[in-house]
Amino acid sequence: MTRVIRPSPRVTFAAGNVGDWAMDRILPVIGEPLLGGARLAILPGGAEPTTFVWKLAGVQSNTRYTTADEARRLTAAQLPLGRGAARCAALIPIRKSDAWWSLAQDQRREIYEERSRHTTVGLEYVSRIARRLHHSRDLGEPFDFLTWFEYAPEHEAAFDELLVRLRASEEWQYVDREFEVRLSR
Amino acid sequence: MTRVIRPSPRVTFAAGNVGDWAMDRILPVIGEPLLGGARLAILPGGAEPTTFVWKLAGVQSNTRYTTADEARRLTAAQLPLGRGAARCAALIPIRKSDAWWSLAQDQRREIYEERSRHTTVGLEYVSRIARRLHHSRDLGEPFDFLTWFEYAPEHEAAFDELLVRLRASEEWQYVDREFEVRLSR
Repeated sequence: MTRVIRPSPRVTFAAGNVGDWAMDRILPVIGEPLLGGARLAILPGGAEPTTFVWKLAGVQSNTRYTTADEARRLTAAQLPLGRGAARCAALIPIRKSDAWWSLAQDQRREIYEERSRHTTVGLEYVSRIARRLHHSRDLGEPFDFLTWFEYAPEHEAAFDELLVRLRASEEWQYVDREFEVRLSR
Repeated sequence: MTRVIRPSPRVTFAAGNVGDWAMDRILPVIGEPLLGGARLAILPGGAEPTTFVWKLAGVQSNTRYTTADEARRLTAAQLPLGRGAARCAALIPIRKSDAWWSLAQDQRREIYEERSRHTTVGLEYVSRIARRLHHSRDLGEPFDFLTWFEYAPEHEAAFDELLVRLRASEEWQYVDREFEVRLSR
């Protein structure tokens, strides 16, 4: 069982001059990144930043592909956000193509897990890298998903490896825009 | 394949004194209905009503449970909205319980179709009753789904029967708020 919070918690990531996290670098992956900003503020509950260079919003929502068995294994293994040792973070916005969204649920699940092993691969890392997914597509945002990661500096290589493995998967053939922000505090 | 429109088309249903549809009656089903309004306006593209008694918004989004095979059968059989003969309509907002949203994808699918036959039952009616689903939960709206139906007067009994069958299903044990607006033009 996942804990449900109603309404779906909305989070805004705002790049500018304020916020707990220093933006160390912005890396293009597929298509144009959003550029600029020295610090990133994470604003909960639909709060809006007063000034910003760019901002992206998403909601924590119900899972879409995870089975009950996978959810149990994730819950048992995963770390919470906000640990003192986790001085590194990454924000990765991605957008999936119309071809992806045109697929039916069983076809998307088949690519996501049976062929790309998204959850199986992720499970190898969740005890070192904390993660929270935000859904943006139905909000009319420019990206479909915003994933926020936190990890200790000694796990940065593991994080890089995770990204390489996911980006090599069949699922990533359906990603048509992606960039990466690396941060520290 | 479903046709994908980006961004997810947003629709606002506004009850008040204007709109193409006359509100004939508002029926409570589970919990408190929204009351008032003589006519219903359907505003596309995020347009906001200038005056209203109540309003509800949702987005047309990707399907969440439908398999490719089910999607093919629905597409082959279903009617479009806006037919001249379809002088009757209904708007049915529903909210599902935290217990529903805590379930994993496979558990929700199992209840939705394998045990409640939501799509199988619906397929018996789609050649008489046109339907469009709007997702509201991630928008912070009071309901999770808004379904809009259109049908000719001679198919009202079939529509009533469809509602009775769906509401008797196991899936509906997870509906914790629902009301119904019947309309005509």
